[in-house]
Amino acid sequence: MIEKTIQNWHDHMRGNYEPGLDGLIHDDCVFYSPVVFTPQKGKEITMMYLNAAGATLGNAADGDPKERDENHIPFRYIKEVVAGNTAMLEFERTSGGKYMNGIDIITCDDEGKIIEFKVMIRPLQAVNLLHKQMGAMLEKMSDGK
Amino acid sequence: MIEKTIQNWHDHMRGNYEPGLDGLIHDDCVFYSPVVFTPQKGKEITMMYLNAAGATLGNAADGDPKERDENHIPFRYIKEVVAGNTAMLEFERTSGGKYMNGIDIITCDDEGKIIEFKVMIRPLQAVNLLHKQMGAMLEKMSDGK
Repeated sequence: MIEKTIQNWHDHMRGNYEPGLDGLIHDDCVFYSPVVFTPQKGKEITMMYLNAAGATLGNAADGDPKERDENHIPFRYIKEVVAGNTAMLEFERTSGGKYMNGIDIITCDDEGKIIEFKVMIRPLQAVNLLHKQMGAMLEKMSDGK
Repeated sequence: MIEKTIQNWHDHMRGNYEPGLDGLIHDDCVFYSPVVFTPQKGKEITMMYLNAAGATLGNAADGDPKERDENHIPFRYIKEVVAGNTAMLEFERTSGGKYMNGIDIITCDDEGKIIEFKVMIRPLQAVNLLHKQMGAMLEKMSDGK
């Protein structure tokens, strides 16, 4: 069941999944941030974090292509391990010349809805950068309400 | 092949694998720290980092059992996903009342030797704590030479 969900997740990341996050996330999903200890409970707050992460980490956030250096890496998944109801997707990217490497640990229920979404990031400077960028993005998103 | 290696790894973590790290790690293994960007290349430096991590994160580092609070979590693996030549092992522990959650991403060659060992940690305060503790441990270990 999770294979289909992960396929939908990748389609969503490419902007090709019509139901979007709303169709992927369980009402009682819990989001675990790479920065904050406290679990974020419920579909609404999970979607807010994932949307903020998408806006922060996605290629739209990479700025002017002409200003990117030759070592620029767009957000991309580099390793994927799936077993049972858990998928672990490793990713990498650069932002402003800084390398970020991370993992999405995604757990589904028997209907293929995502019930847990956990993110870890390395190295330390990337966690600090993400902390700053995500804070600004969440503030911007809540100002827009 | 990697299933056997991961079984040996768990035995090693319990102190029950006679060949130890020396029998698990490939000569050209690369270690990726949760803190530092630069890949650490070679068996010797990988073993140094893994030994320092064991001494820092292992239960021997937990201090006097009588001083632990009731929420103390000893180092333990909580999720394991294995496919192909990659294993992803999620762990957790507490140290001084602080929660640490992390993942070992282990890659093997066809002979079952570990050729890549990557660690990520969350949340941010745990990465900062580990940074401090690992720095002190590596210094202590190199003083002992």
